[in-house]
Amino acid sequence: MQFPFMGARSVDDFHQGTKAALAGGTTMIIDFAIPQKGGSLIKAFETWRSWADPKVCCDYSLHVAVTWWSDQVKEEMKILTQDKGVNSFKMFMAYKDLYMVRDEELYAAFSQCKEIGAIAQVHAENGDLIAEGAKKMLALGITGPEGHELCRPEAVEAEATLRAITIASAVNCPLYIVHVMSKSAAKVIADARRDGKVVYGEPIAASLGTDGTHYWHKDWHHAAHHVMGPPLRPDPSTPDFLMNLLANGDLTTTGTDHCTFNTCQKALGKDDFTKIPNGVNGVEDRMSVIWEKGVHSGKMDENRFVAVTSTNAAKVFNLYPRKGRIAVGSDADIVIWDPKATRTISARTHHQAVNFNIFEGMVCHGVPLVTISRGKVVYEAGVLSVTAGDGKFIPRKPFAEYIYKRIKQRDQTCTPTPVEREPYKGEVVTLKTRETKEDAAARTRKQAHP
Amino acid sequence: MQFPFMGARSVDDFHQGTKAALAGGTTMIIDFAIPQKGGSLIKAFETWRSWADPKVCCDYSLHVAVTWWSDQVKEEMKILTQDKGVNSFKMFMAYKDLYMVRDEELYAAFSQCKEIGAIAQVHAENGDLIAEGAKKMLALGITGPEGHELCRPEAVEAEATLRAITIASAVNCPLYIVHVMSKSAAKVIADARRDGKVVYGEPIAASLGTDGTHYWHKDWHHAAHHVMGPPLRPDPSTPDFLMNLLANGDLTTTGTDHCTFNTCQKALGKDDFTKIPNGVNGVEDRMSVIWEKGVHSGKMDENRFVAVTSTNAAKVFNLYPRKGRIAVGSDADIVIWDPKATRTISARTHHQAVNFNIFEGMVCHGVPLVTISRGKVVYEAGVLSVTAGDGKFIPRKPFAEYIYKRIKQRDQTCTPTPVEREPYKGEVVTLKTRETKEDAAARTRKQAHP
Amino acid sequence: MQFPFMGARSVDDFHQGTKAALAGGTTMIIDFAIPQKGGSLIKAFETWRSWADPKVCCDYSLHVAVTWWSDQVKEEMKILTQDKGVNSFKMFMAYKDLYMVRDEELYAAFSQCKEIGAIAQVHAENGDLIAEGAKKMLALGITGPEGHELCRPEAVEAEATLRAITIASAVNCPLYIVHVMSKSAAKVIADARRDGKVVYGEPIAASLGTDGTHYWHKDWHHAAHHVMGPPLRPDPSTPDFLMNLLANGDLTTTGTDHCTFNTCQKALGKDDFTKIPNGVNGVEDRMSVIWEKGVHSGKMDENRFVAVTSTNAAKVFNLYPRKGRIAVGSDADIVIWDPKATRTISARTHHQAVNFNIFEGMVCHGVPLVTISRGKVVYEAGVLSVTAGDGKFIPRKPFAEYIYKRIKQRDQTCTPTPVEREPYKGEVVTLKTRETKEDAAARTRKQAHP
Amino acid sequence: MQFPFMGARSVDDFHQGTKAALAGGTTMIIDFAIPQKGGSLIKAFETWRSWADPKVCCDYSLHVAVTWWSDQVKEEMKILTQDKGVNSFKMFMAYKDLYMVRDEELYAAFSQCKEIGAIAQVHAENGDLIAEGAKKMLALGITGPEGHELCRPEAVEAEATLRAITIASAVNCPLYIVHVMSKSAAKVIADARRDGKVVYGEPIAASLGTDGTHYWHKDWHHAAHHVMGPPLRPDPSTPDFLMNLLANGDLTTTGTDHCTFNTCQKALGKDDFTKIPNGVNGVEDRMSVIWEKGVHSGKMDENRFVAVTSTNAAKVFNLYPRKGRIAVGSDADIVIWDPKATRTISARTHHQAVNFNIFEGMVCHGVPLVTISRGKVVYEAGVLSVTAGDGKFIPRKPFAEYIYKRIKQRDQTCTPTPVEREPYKGEVVTLKTRETKEDAAARTRKQAHP
Repeated sequence: MQFPFMGARSVDDFHQGTKAALAGGTTMIIDFAIPQKGGSLIKAFETWRSWADPKVCCDYSLHVAVTWWSDQVKEEMKILTQDKGVNSFKMFMAYKDLYMVRDEELYAAFSQCKEIGAIAQVHAENGDLIAEGAKKMLALGITGPEGHELCRPEAVEAEATLRAITIASAVNCPLYIVHVMSKSAAKVIADARRDGKVVYGEPIAASLGTDGTHYWHKDWHHAAHHVMGPPLRPDPSTPDFLMNLLANGDLTTTGTDHCTFNTCQKALGKDDFTKIPNGVNGVEDRMSVIWEKGVHSGKMDENRFVAVTSTNAAKVFNLYPRKGRIAVGSDADIVIWDPKATRTISARTHHQAVNFNIFEGMVCHGVPLVTISRGKVVYEAGVLSVTAGDGKFIPRKPFAEYIYKRIKQRDQTCTPTPVEREPYKGEVVTLKTRETKEDAAARTRKQAHP
Repeated sequence: MQFPFMGARSVDDFHQGTKAALAGGTTMIIDFAIPQKGGSLIKAFETWRSWADPKVCCDYSLHVAVTWWSDQVKEEMKILTQDKGVNSFKMFMAYKDLYMVRDEELYAAFSQCKEIGAIAQVHAENGDLIAEGAKKMLALGITGPEGHELCRPEAVEAEATLRAITIASAVNCPLYIVHVMSKSAAKVIADARRDGKVVYGEPIAASLGTDGTHYWHKDWHHAAHHVMGPPLRPDPSTPDFLMNLLANGDLTTTGTDHCTFNTCQKALGKDDFTKIPNGVNGVEDRMSVIWEKGVHSGKMDENRFVAVTSTNAAKVFNLYPRKGRIAVGSDADIVIWDPKATRTISARTHHQAVNFNIFEGMVCHGVPLVTISRGKVVYEAGVLSVTAGDGKFIPRKPFAEYIYKRIKQRDQTCTPTPVEREPYKGEVVTLKTRETKEDAAARTRKQAHP
Repeated sequence: MQFPFMGARSVDDFHQGTKAALAGGTTMIIDFAIPQKGGSLIKAFETWRSWADPKVCCDYSLHVAVTWWSDQVKEEMKILTQDKGVNSFKMFMAYKDLYMVRDEELYAAFSQCKEIGAIAQVHAENGDLIAEGAKKMLALGITGPEGHELCRPEAVEAEATLRAITIASAVNCPLYIVHVMSKSAAKVIADARRDGKVVYGEPIAASLGTDGTHYWHKDWHHAAHHVMGPPLRPDPSTPDFLMNLLANGDLTTTGTDHCTFNTCQKALGKDDFTKIPNGVNGVEDRMSVIWEKGVHSGKMDENRFVAVTSTNAAKVFNLYPRKGRIAVGSDADIVIWDPKATRTISARTHHQAVNFNIFEGMVCHGVPLVTISRGKVVYEAGVLSVTAGDGKFIPRKPFAEYIYKRIKQRDQTCTPTPVEREPYKGEVVTLKTRETKEDAAARTRKQAHP
Repeated sequence: MQFPFMGARSVDDFHQGTKAALAGGTTMIIDFAIPQKGGSLIKAFETWRSWADPKVCCDYSLHVAVTWWSDQVKEEMKILTQDKGVNSFKMFMAYKDLYMVRDEELYAAFSQCKEIGAIAQVHAENGDLIAEGAKKMLALGITGPEGHELCRPEAVEAEATLRAITIASAVNCPLYIVHVMSKSAAKVIADARRDGKVVYGEPIAASLGTDGTHYWHKDWHHAAHHVMGPPLRPDPSTPDFLMNLLANGDLTTTGTDHCTFNTCQKALGKDDFTKIPNGVNGVEDRMSVIWEKGVHSGKMDENRFVAVTSTNAAKVFNLYPRKGRIAVGSDADIVIWDPKATRTISARTHHQAVNFNIFEGMVCHGVPLVTISRGKVVYEAGVLSVTAGDGKFIPRKPFAEYIYKRIKQRDQTCTPTPVEREPYKGEVVTLKTRETKEDAAARTRKQAHP
């Protein structure tokens, strides 16, 4: 929300954005606080708090990004975890020179996450390849939004996904892949899970509900409004594929990467796709899109819907059972869902500030009738009853059981130990009798005529 | 041959090494000339020539390594290709601080290879992970040869393999993966080929003939003699898996990465596996090991054996039809093979200088009876008849048809073009009628009670 | 329990077998009632009830096998579902001439399961191939237990698994694969789930805890005691692989296929492996084996352990929430587990009747301290306090929500509809102008010299 | 050619069909002689010879189908191989009740192929599922050509493909999958080859050049003209996928399954898709389609084109080096190819008798300029100069080296041998001391409080 990025500030602020969330049936969000390279993580966290606290209409929490590495960063991660309620840190493998960190920094950051009981998150794309790809596309005269996808095809996402998993696995640190956008990246995650890796994949409303053929749309503004990173994929079978993996357990949670820019902001990149502010809508649409494509289609049942839209995230980020559960003692964050009603998504009717909706015209079965936030009805019959600042920041403790039980157990039982052997003491290991030339000839003759 | 590495110099020099090759049925080798970071590629090439020319007993050629990046390196690659007969360049993704180059350097080097018509080669292992892994193993008290494998498990090889392929594919540059050591790396290559990538994988005698369980051998010197990078894998089904892929076409050629150190040299790392000079034997053993495990086992026929041990390499490195073929006009490099004879590999009887053989005791069906180098019998009935310097340096031209036909065709037919659209001209795209609160309530009621 | 099979009757009857279950921490079993070809399903069901009811010490239920096909069978399936509390039917793709049914019978049986709201179960092995393979092994002089595995290698299991899934998917019938024994069969299931199929895989204590190398054991009786169908697999990485898939959700439940024969019974096949009664122990060992290999190893956490050993089965077979849950209103079937205590599995100390234990000597962390059956302590501090007949038959209703929600939804939304087109009305579709010979020549010349 | 099938006879007879082949650059065909169930294979062979011999304009050979099983069939296979020049037999897994054979018959037929040195071929689709699927589609009111694909989706092909490979592998018989139509079937073949199986896959012009979206075409006759079995697939990425596998070696040869019916013949199924005669064109189009999609696209080079269109088939079917090679001593069957010329495929200009072309409008780079059959120019500059009966029947010998070398070697080295053990002699294996109740309680207490 209200993210200052690529020369613009996303139009849904914490007020409008959380209203839209509630209207869509989502009762809590976790946003990202992102320091500049060289900047303080704590300061970024405080800045985001100062933006959000007076405005939020629903509960929220914050991930913090690690965009560079130093002892200070390491120390601040610890403080954020111990004192500030942050148990998840995001590293960018893309956005070279801006946010991108390299493998050894990933290793260091993952190691610290493990140490302090946080979960590591990555934006998985190879930033070097994107930078080179963008240059190449511009050189080919491709300046429109299709260049955005062409310079970072799905192999670029799959590669980084495998790399992140490999590094996290070397550290035995749990890993969470944000915005899984492609079949090949999802397959990498699913394969890693088959191999026993502690990794979670999060597809988003956009990748589950639409596809990247829109980048080739004839209207520039239509195409530009779909620009996000990693991009939507031109393969039209992508949403179905991702939904199948979300249904069967290979993917775990669903997010939105909601970050909206109006057409006039997108137009910063009208002559150069690399300057189009990245981001699409989703915070209001997520629940309906997943119900339509997941539950109504018969891919998952209602229980799995609750798990992938709410409970699993609550468990991964250690909000459970306060969030993610309906029970005595839990926060009464509830949405009453009508599976029979339908609605048509449109920018004209949505509560999001942005003047475009990537799901425009999608007819969705499944409509939120009533949304309740901490016991208070905040949305009913199409009407929001909210007050800015009513939402609370929800601190999150480290070492979430859901993810750290296995991690700790593995530390105890899977750590290798040295082979017991007499060390080499310098004795000469000689060849007893090197064969003479004559012997060799004789032996060879014998082999040939046995 | 005679490679100065990790504080030692490998014991098979160009004389002894090429003698061993001929005795094993191999009539030409391609070695690597490797400059230090900051050093001249041409100078390295000339140095290696000066070592080899007076000593070689069979024909040879040289790959040159790119261990750093600059305009000078770029220029020297061009000169080597145009004037010196080099059409293949090797980049290390491992050996951090020594030889390792990073992704943007790989991109640059691959781009230059493509430009000048060379094939890019990579040592595919994630050097950052190895460096961290080695520290970790030593911290755990694991100082023996098993630490060598534990700090660089096969995921480290598979990750780098996928990364190299992704980068090469972005450039449309042909790629050759040297020493494929693991099932997972081989699978990455095979999958990429299914996906249409121009990539070639080279397993070696060691990975096809033995495995990494030896690192856990109780005798230090036995374990240490198996140390090479990437390591042999503890999974005992690895050789069979690799041979199947070599038989069916997923892997293309076979090498040895022959680089031998005697026990006293290996002992440099007696207290710290990171100091054990990396390298194993193979130049003499390769043909017999592959015959035994490939042909005698029924995995491939004799024609495929010829392809994977000779013809394919000749085609990839543009030596065909001078090498790799028996025909009028081709060099008469011939081995006469007895499929019924058997021999037992042993350090006591091999021609390699090293005092250990990783295939010790392997009974091989299939024995070279006579080896002919450019028309001259150089090995017969167990006796070598060679003269140092009789071998020639074989220059190789760029743009080998076998690999560049498709590359060029793709450049012509697969390059993307811009979408034709009116550029965005600043018009305001407004929402015609944003819904009022009352409308929203009415609409929602209707949805709920259709 | 007390299954008459291959000329013997398994030694654990419903009394001893359920005692062993309770001692191991299992509070309910589901056994199979298996009619002969041509026999009544209802009669088989009643027979098994008459055996079990007076003897069982814990609650139980019954699957019924469909070993042939007719209108009577179809009708009896309906009656069993409506009146007798059976909602799962097992079809054998192996045991040719004895129990095996063919593809069209599978199709019919799956269709009826779908109609009546049951779940189809299959023993997935290609019975024709086993019959031929067995003949071949005996012809090769292989009469020992290793022949059992050699005549039905894992490809035979994987093939049938894919076939069953393909047929079930054609019918949109949920499918449950009993005793998943091999990596390749498990991979088929996992891939099908990625593809959205409603299929569940059940590895068993045996496949999760030991492997098929035992068939090559030098002691005949040791080898013979491991004979079961499908066999344990010689690939020693099988148990780890299956446990990873059980942990990540690709496999769903765990069974035992408990069916025990004493050495003297196994000896029926001393000269011919095809006559060794098939079956191994597991009902007492299951919980400890899975805790040790799954939880203690760090592959899964305690919650997943509960899911795969209890809750998931309760959901699939529609016993939930009566079973599979600790809550007010549920049966108080509870086991108190001590994760720190260890015990060593042995035939000398187990409660199973059989004189051999395939897990002999396995040290297991995780010990059941107290077992409670419907509120009554039945096992504590190593002592059983049970009465034959205290267990109850638990009827199961059809259309379990956990599996049928998606099935029904798919019927509604995924059924194809005809293309709207004018039917072909007999008009002649002629080639307007077939090219003349001269035209063809002219055109071709033009192509050649454009 | 002139195949009597489904109440019609295909319109390209051996005269017109072979003329079309030559015009397209193909110099030899292998057709199928197909006896009815119960009919003589030899008689079918002779019948087809009598149709073909007087008419063929290019050389040809015949596969013979095994549509039922008996000792007579077994004997006739032997005779055909020894005396009639047939070394390949095709089995149908589809066309239930007409041609379909079951698994045990496949096993028997494959065993006989192995015995006599033939290669087994299969039409891989599950005939039971097709029969049931067709009923289901008709019951849903789907009578149009789309029903043809809907009743036999690609899972039906992939399933049968895996089954055939599993059976052939059990027999160690080489296997050739005709008309590979889907990604999933091709993947099964490719995976089997990775696993070392001796299996060859043949995609065809149709599956490489078009797709199954045409079944949903609004014009019935357009849709009906694409009906063949197995069907083309609606997934539009299928042709690219198959071509990649053909390029990289996972698929081996290319055929056409050419079997053409005019619109009025197709109209036999105007009210019921199951009555539309199955078959499409391809014999003239194959070379151009593969050049366009394979070579011009940069997926393969010219050498691979020659291999997949000619040489590999010659090797598999033991016609090499008489066919498939340009050399002294080989038949001068040559096509001169112009890679720069283009032509547009159309029913108006093709030489095939049928009044529809599934590749209508495809612009193909690569045009056959001159076709030479056994040294005689038969097609030049668009004009055919042929005489009916000029083509010869080419007999083929068994035990083709290209496929049987490995088969024989495996028989020698991979056959299992019995474990040497003392047979079980009836000794009683007793449990030395079964634990008493008191012992058990004591032991358990100790475990709980260690």
